[in-house]
Parts: sequence; structure tokens; C-alpha cells
Amino acid sequence: MRTTQLLFPTLREDPSDAEVISHKLLMRAGMIRKTAGGIYTYLPLAFRVLKKISQIVREEMDKAGGQEVGLPIVQPRELWDQSGRWQLYGDEMFRLKDRHQRDFCLGPTHEEVITALVDGEVHSYRDLPLLLYQIQDKFRDEIRPRFGLMRGREFIMKDLYSFDVDEDGLDISYRKMYFAYQAIFERIGLDFRVVEADSGAIGGNVSHEFMVLAGSGESVIVYCDQCNYAANVEKAEAVCKMPEDALQCGAYELVASPGVRTVDDVSGFLGIKPERVIKTLIYVADGQPYAVLIRGDRELNEIKLKNHLGATEIFMAPEEMVQEITGVSIGSVGPIGLKIKILADLEIRHMADAVCGANRPEYHLLHVLPERDFKVAEYLDLRNVVAGDPCPHCAGELKATRGIEVGHIFKLGTKYSQAMNAWFLDEDGNKRHYVMGCYGIGISRVMAAAIEQRYDKNGIIWPMSIAPFQAIIVPVNVKDVQQVTYAEQLYRDLIARGVEALLDDREERAGVKFKDADLIGIPLRITVGPKSLQQGKVELKRRWEAEGELIAQSDIIEVIMSEIKKELR
Amino acid sequence: MRTTQLLFPTLREDPSDAEVISHKLLMRAGMIRKTAGGIYTYLPLAFRVLKKISQIVREEMDKAGGQEVGLPIVQPRELWDQSGRWQLYGDEMFRLKDRHQRDFCLGPTHEEVITALVDGEVHSYRDLPLLLYQIQDKFRDEIRPRFGLMRGREFIMKDLYSFDVDEDGLDISYRKMYFAYQAIFERIGLDFRVVEADSGAIGGNVSHEFMVLAGSGESVIVYCDQCNYAANVEKAEAVCKMPEDALQCGAYELVASPGVRTVDDVSGFLGIKPERVIKTLIYVADGQPYAVLIRGDRELNEIKLKNHLGATEIFMAPEEMVQEITGVSIGSVGPIGLKIKILADLEIRHMADAVCGANRPEYHLLHVLPERDFKVAEYLDLRNVVAGDPCPHCAGELKATRGIEVGHIFKLGTKYSQAMNAWFLDEDGNKRHYVMGCYGIGISRVMAAAIEQRYDKNGIIWPMSIAPFQAIIVPVNVKDVQQVTYAEQLYRDLIARGVEALLDDREERAGVKFKDADLIGIPLRITVGPKSLQQGKVELKRRWEAEGELIAQSDIIEVIMSEIKKELR
Repeated sequence: MRTTQLLFPTLREDPSDAEVISHKLLMRAGMIRKTAGGIYTYLPLAFRVLKKISQIVREEMDKAGGQEVGLPIVQPRELWDQSGRWQLYGDEMFRLKDRHQRDFCLGPTHEEVITALVDGEVHSYRDLPLLLYQIQDKFRDEIRPRFGLMRGREFIMKDLYSFDVDEDGLDISYRKMYFAYQAIFERIGLDFRVVEADSGAIGGNVSHEFMVLAGSGESVIVYCDQCNYAANVEKAEAVCKMPEDALQCGAYELVASPGVRTVDDVSGFLGIKPERVIKTLIYVADGQPYAVLIRGDRELNEIKLKNHLGATEIFMAPEEMVQEITGVSIGSVGPIGLKIKILADLEIRHMADAVCGANRPEYHLLHVLPERDFKVAEYLDLRNVVAGDPCPHCAGELKATRGIEVGHIFKLGTKYSQAMNAWFLDEDGNKRHYVMGCYGIGISRVMAAAIEQRYDKNGIIWPMSIAPFQAIIVPVNVKDVQQVTYAEQLYRDLIARGVEALLDDREERAGVKFKDADLIGIPLRITVGPKSLQQGKVELKRRWEAEGELIAQSDIIEVIMSEIKKELR
Repeated sequence: MRTTQLLFPTLREDPSDAEVISHKLLMRAGMIRKTAGGIYTYLPLAFRVLKKISQIVREEMDKAGGQEVGLPIVQPRELWDQSGRWQLYGDEMFRLKDRHQRDFCLGPTHEEVITALVDGEVHSYRDLPLLLYQIQDKFRDEIRPRFGLMRGREFIMKDLYSFDVDEDGLDISYRKMYFAYQAIFERIGLDFRVVEADSGAIGGNVSHEFMVLAGSGESVIVYCDQCNYAANVEKAEAVCKMPEDALQCGAYELVASPGVRTVDDVSGFLGIKPERVIKTLIYVADGQPYAVLIRGDRELNEIKLKNHLGATEIFMAPEEMVQEITGVSIGSVGPIGLKIKILADLEIRHMADAVCGANRPEYHLLHVLPERDFKVAEYLDLRNVVAGDPCPHCAGELKATRGIEVGHIFKLGTKYSQAMNAWFLDEDGNKRHYVMGCYGIGISRVMAAAIEQRYDKNGIIWPMSIAPFQAIIVPVNVKDVQQVTYAEQLYRDLIARGVEALLDDREERAGVKFKDADLIGIPLRITVGPKSLQQGKVELKRRWEAEGELIAQSDIIEVIMSEIKKELR
């Protein structure tokens, strides 16, 4: 293609409303434009990238036995009533009525539609397993759409659903998808990690996230430096390796602590380390109050707490409610004498000579010994893992990094097939619910994540696999007949060899063209300038290298071909 | 692919709610399933066909200089207020509110979004022309969705929009699209005609429809048997070739006509041909009443009338209103003595000794001579053309046929760019509105139309270009090792040669497999049976031929390759 015929309105300045680098660069490279909050138009360069990502995903899904289908965007309420999610989904679901006042939603996901479809068509174990997928726009009415394509309201997803006869079948389907996802992100050429994840509201018990590593990532990932353990911090298992010493100390005693509220206050006032403080948090889970104990230097992981309790909704009690439940304010609560159920993190079991609130305003207790001084209903893994924690699988130590979730695979089990009463007949003629899995990749999010991982101050650095064009030819001066003649010939030769080439035939200064080529991130730039041309050479510059190199005209096509081949793993 | 791994739940019976053949066969071939009224799921076979149609369309759009983009489905009301269509579009537009109660619609078309985009990014005549397109789901809340994919509420469209500096530029863009569309339907291999069409509410004055010829088509097309004139009957020009005789007759006279109401009544009662009767119709256009005269044997074309009047809304006055306007009932109205404006079809000018209503109950007038007996404000082309009419372009005669609209191209002019105040600077630095065109192809409709044109009692007959698979291999007995071994080898060889082959490896009777192969319409069927195998042969049957032929095993691959090549024009 020629730049004079390509719509790519590049910007010199960062748009004011863009917070993250991918949003800034997608805007500046003329790839996306906002149509409404969280709703974007993809311009030609972006559309090329999206097509390439989709094609890689499609090929790997097909290889793994997936069949591509097209499910509707507008979905009738009846299906969502069957699964119970019409109510559950809340404001995040776009809802609408048709002209006959019937309720519909815009598909945020497609478990309901696909389960109903399969239930209608597949009646025998002989027709399973079945892996159906689509690549399509999805809709979620985010309360605060932001970060450009990272959290939009209309976005492109690949979603595959697997249907198996039993858990063993699901294991196989799940593993197929796991490896297909690995293949996809390897082919795209992104640095990523697979982490154990919390499966959240979508149900099921096993789930993995595919995270593209990037400093700007929303999620914290911990991983072992010695084995391949990696997990989302929300899910990562905290190992409690404590000294086996007999735990003892003198009887607890009251100490006045005027104005002391937080763990930092306590440790400062008493001159002790925060890890000797027992933090007492009051939580309400499905209407029931709990005291939750955690070491002063740790963070409570609410998802772990919620999962342990099997609760639908939990929240930390606000000041007034704490007063009502415990009789004192938040900063003075402690476990001794509390009337509500006490849950404690595993580490609490190993504390001695601890400090905690006294349930009396302006006082704390010293020399506290758990189990001697108060009873705990259950010791649980409740804290966030941090870098330096021991690995739960080996003798290694955990490191932390940040990542962007681009793929998520779930074992759903029979959650939907049971709710929607969807079944097949097994070998013995018995009715059985399909055992399901679901597997998503955010196609438009992958594009943004690739940028978050690969950019420099000049712009995007696309991996060859998903670059909108593989090579750009820049004649320095389009009024120089010799340069133009050579550039045009090279352009035609590259196209003929199947290279996705862009010819910058604009009447612009070379500096402007170089800036644009860098900004839009084309992997290979071939500069056709007067000096090198006289020497029978052209300059090849790789986007990720600072300097270009001169290549003989007789070699340039082969060099480009081999460069592309090398990059496309 | 193997049939055991393909979801194609074929049905033996026509579904009860399917009225047209494409709906019946798409359902029976296991290609689509209904999710809600007018909303369908595309199963794997259908999705393959849709991908092929899309790819052909994409290639031709790219060749014509189109750039593919992705525009949002959910569109903010503000854009539609600018064009004035938020009000105009009525109930056919799906509307919704987001969580902040802001108004959005589901894109039924994208003029607004694309005009706003281009207005924001393209400011100079140097960046024009610009041709942007997308292939995407569109939404129209049809009052009565029916005929399967022919009139759905969620359907797939390719829509391209052209932006030019002036009308001459638009002419070029329009012509590019015209030829691209011809290329598309030729490549797909459908029998089609391009017709002049009414551009309706979308605006502009020039428009062509691409019609796939099929007996079940909703539209009547007339075409010349001697030149390439063709037009939608709504638009076709009626030529009035009448004798040049001096028109004369005796003075008109009143005749009692008790119980005579319709043209048929009149001609029966008086024993004259209907073409001697003047039919007087009362119409109301934007609140204004008109008498419209047309020959008794003709049909009024309301669209022509509406366009001539430049009216927004017209309707035929009901009985009560006719009484109020003329003082008599519908069957007695005539032009003589009427107080409202009279419009007449061209043919009325050439009538003499005509019969018409007397504006007096139970009476008619004989020997009526237009212009002598009543004045006509305007003679216009108001009637429907019929087969046998003279061609307006040559000496030929028009024929009539039926067609399905699969493509429609429009010159929009500045309708949208003016309404939305979208402009660029021309060579002289003056603000100018973009001159636009829009060009649509119903991708999912093409799939249905192809079936309406190509089927027999056994099922679909896909053209090679868009067939879900090019060839199907049917081993007669999958328990026969020799057959299976040969079929598997042939399958692998064909795949290796790039043939889209399907292997029917199901444990079913040969009859069932043949029925399914016919039903889903695979162009080439290779049957591997015991007898032919012993002779070193296999049977090749083309879907559109009654009988197969035996081909030597050594030749079969080359025969298949050349057959595919021949079919793919």
C-alpha cells in the first residue's frame, strides 16, 4: 500500500485523556478514534493488526479442533433467566427492548446462547467433545471505561466453549486450549506468563490467566524463580513457614495508647515491628459479621476470604457498623473478648508476645498469645503473597511482576448445563449434563497489550507477526526521479514476493516520514537516499535497533525476506 | 475436515415456520438455528460460506482502493441528532440507554459515524478521495422479520462509504464500486442483474441495485431483451408510445351505473376494455389532497408519485376522506368538476372517448375527452411498467423477472456532510462539504440468495466459490478396511493439494451420507465403493448433474483440481 492512499492521521501530541501508553500511541499512530466513552473506531492500521491477531487465534483454535460459528449479539432475556444471570449481571450488561417491548441484552459473553444451541442439537455422547468458538464484538457497560482499548465497552473477543461427557473429557479439552493459548502468544511473540487465577463469578474451580508482562499491567503476578509456578496475586498460595519454637510469653497487659489507631501508629508508639501487631478487621459476609486477624505487616486478600466463606458478597464494615458490632471504634478492636466468629490468617497461629487492640478506647494489649488468650474458629490462608515469599511448590522464592490479562480459560463444569437443564444421553442411555469449559482471548486487548510491552519514546514496536505492514520503504525525496524509480521498483518486487510493504510516497520531509514510520511501529524500514543509492546501497533499519545498516541493492530483497522469516516463529 | 468432527445437524423435514426455500434448506442443512425472531446463529457450515463471501468482497473492495475499518455497533444518539435521523428512523432502530441513561442505538447503517470520523481527520482535498469499508453485524428491528436470513433483525453487511471533493469525483468512486460489485457477483457465480433503483429514504438521486435472479425474489425487475437496460419496477421508466391521431369524440354523457364500483365492474357493465377507463385515485401527500388519473388497466406506482411530488409521506385516501374531499364515494369519483389538483399519467393525454366516474353516486360518464372536458395540472410517468412495454433506451421490448436485492449503491451527494457540517478545504482554501456515496452488500443475504437461485429437490447446490467444502469423500462402508484406507489417503492428498475436502467418516448407511452430501450442497462428491475400487476407480459426481462418472484412481486428483479451477472463475 501507499501512504498517500492510507488513512493514518498521526498526531504529534499525546491526547489529553489518554492515561496509558497503548492508548496514547494508538491515538497518535492514527489507529483508533473514540466514538463514545469506551467505544472506539478502528482505523485501517488497527484493523490490519486485529485481522492478523484474529487469524493466528483462528488457526490455533482450528488446529485444536475448534469449529468457528457466529452467535448473535442481541440475545433474548429468556436464555439469561434460565441461567439466572439476567438478575445477577447487574448494570454491566447493556439491556434493550425491541419494538414489541421484549427484553434483550447485548452479549457480554455467550454461555447461555451456546448452551441452548448445543442442548437443541447434540443429544448423544457420540457427538462429544464439541469445541465451538467465535470472534466477535462483546459489550460490557463498564462503570468507568478507561485506558483506551484496555477496558472498553465494545471490544473484540474470541470465545470458545467446550462440551464434554465428563470431567476427564473436560481435562483434555482444557489442556488443548491451554496449549493452544501458549502457541498463540508465542506466535504473536509476546513475553507472557500463565498464572493460576481466581475464577470469580463465572464459576467453576480451575482457571488460568494468560498475562502479557508489562510494567503498566493492572494485575500483580508472582512467580517462582526456580520452578514454573506462577499465579495471580489474588490466587497465589501463601506458605506459612514459621519457627517451630514453643510459643510462650507472660500474661497480657493493658497499656494506654492515646491517639493510636493504625498499625503504623502502634508500632511507632510501642517501638515494635509491625509484624508483632495483630490487625483485627471486621468483615460482613452475606450479612454475617466476622473478625478477621492478620499480621500487621500483611495485606488481607478479600477474594481468598470470600472464597473460603463461600459468600456472595463481602465488605469491610464501616466505622459505624464496627461500633455497633464491637462497641469500640475501628482502631481499638482486638480479638480478646469479641463475641463474633474469629477467622485468622495462618501466620497468627505462630505469633507470641503480640500486640492488639483492647476493645477499649485508647488502650492496647501487650504480651498477647493466640489460643491462650482468645480462640480462633479457623486458621486460613488469607493474606496476599509478596515478593520474597517461599514458593508453594518448591524451595524457590517468589518474585513479583505486573501483567495484562489477555486470555482466561475456565473449567465451568456443569454450572450452565445444570442451570439450563441441558443434557445428552450417555453410553448407558442416562441423561447427563454437559461438562463445559470456556476460553476467552481479548483480541483488541492483545493489540493494546502488545504496545504496553513493546514501545519506546518514538512509538510502537510491533512484533513482525501482527505488524500492520512488515516493511516500509521511505524515499528521502519524492521529487528525485532516481530515488522514486528505485523505491517503486523495490516496492513492486517486495509485493510480488508476498511482503506486506508500505511505500511512503508522500511529499513530506524525510524527518516527518521517519517519525511516522517509528510511531506506527513498522518492523523494517528501508530508506532510499541519494548517497547510499550512488553506492548501490540502501539503508535497512530494524525498528528495535538504534542504527540502520547499509545493504547492497542486490541483496536487499533476500535480507528482508530472511529477516521476516526469522521474526515469524 | 471429518464429518464426525463437524457440527451439522441435518433435518429430514422442513421446519414448520420456514416459508422460503433458503430458510428451509439452511435449517435442514444444519447451517443456521433461530435464537430469537429474525436473529440466527450461524453453525460451522454457514460460517464457512460467510467467510468465503466476505473474503471475495474484501478482495474486490481492496482492489478498488477501499480501506477496511471497524466502526462501532453501539452508536451515541448525538451523531444521529446531527443528521436528523434519530427522529426519522422510527421503530426500525434498536435503541438503548447505558448505565448513565445516555441514549445509544445499534447501528442499522453507518453514515453518521463515518462522516463524523472523516470530518475529524480529513481536512484537505489532497486526502480525498477516501473509500472506507467494513464487514459487520447490522441491526434493524423489522416489524415482521421473516424468510430466514432474507429479512432478519441482526445480519451481516459490507458497507463502504466514499468521500470525494466533487460530483465528478463521486462519479468515479461510484463507477469503481459498480464494477467491483459486478466482479464480486461474477466471482461468486450468481446469475444477477444490475438495475436502476429508487434511492428511497437514504437520499441522493442515483442508485443501482444488484439483484440475484430467483423466482422467489421480492422485487420485480424489468429488463430489455435487446440492450442492457434493466430496472426495478419501482423505478423503471414507462414510455408512452401512442397513436398520433387527432383525439376527438362526441360530447360526454351521463349513464346510470347502479352498483358499479371498480374498473372491472365498469368494463363489464359497459362492455368496453379496461384501457378505455380513467381510474381516479385520491391521494394525500404531506396533508395535501390530489386526484391521480391512470388508465384502467394500469397500476399506479406510488414511489414515482411520491418522488414527483417530493413528498415525505403519501397515502391513498380512505373512503371517509374521499367522501369529504369529493362528496362521493371512491367508486364514483371522476376528474370532471373536481376542485382539487389533478395529476395524470402520460397515457391519459392520449385517451379519447374514455369512461370515468361522474362524481354522482351510481353514474358514470361516457365519451370523455381529456383537456376538453377537464384540465390536468401535470402529466407524469406514474404507472408501473409491465412486461411487453417498450424499452426506454432502444427499440426493444421489456421482459419481467424476479430478483433478490443483494447489493445497493447510492450517490448520497452532500446530504450527510451538509447535515453534519462536515467539510474539507479545497484547492483554493474554501470550505466544501464532502460529496459522498454509500455502497452495501448483504453478506448473509447473499448466502440465502445463492440458495434461492441454486437448489433442487435434494438440497442446496453451492457454486464452487462459496461452497463450505469443495469436495466430499464418501466411503460407502467405513468398516471396509480397503475403502477406508483409500478414502483416508485421498483425503490427505486432496488436503495437501489445497482442496477444501470433507471426509464422511461416519458409521452411517451410504444412503444417509449421499442425502446429507446433497442437502449441504458440496459441489464434488467422490464415492469410494467396493466395485469401483476393484476396477481401480472411484465415482465422481457433480452436485448439479444427475449421474456420476467413474474415474481412474490415478486421475482422480487431477480431475478434481481441474474441476475446481474451472468452476472458480
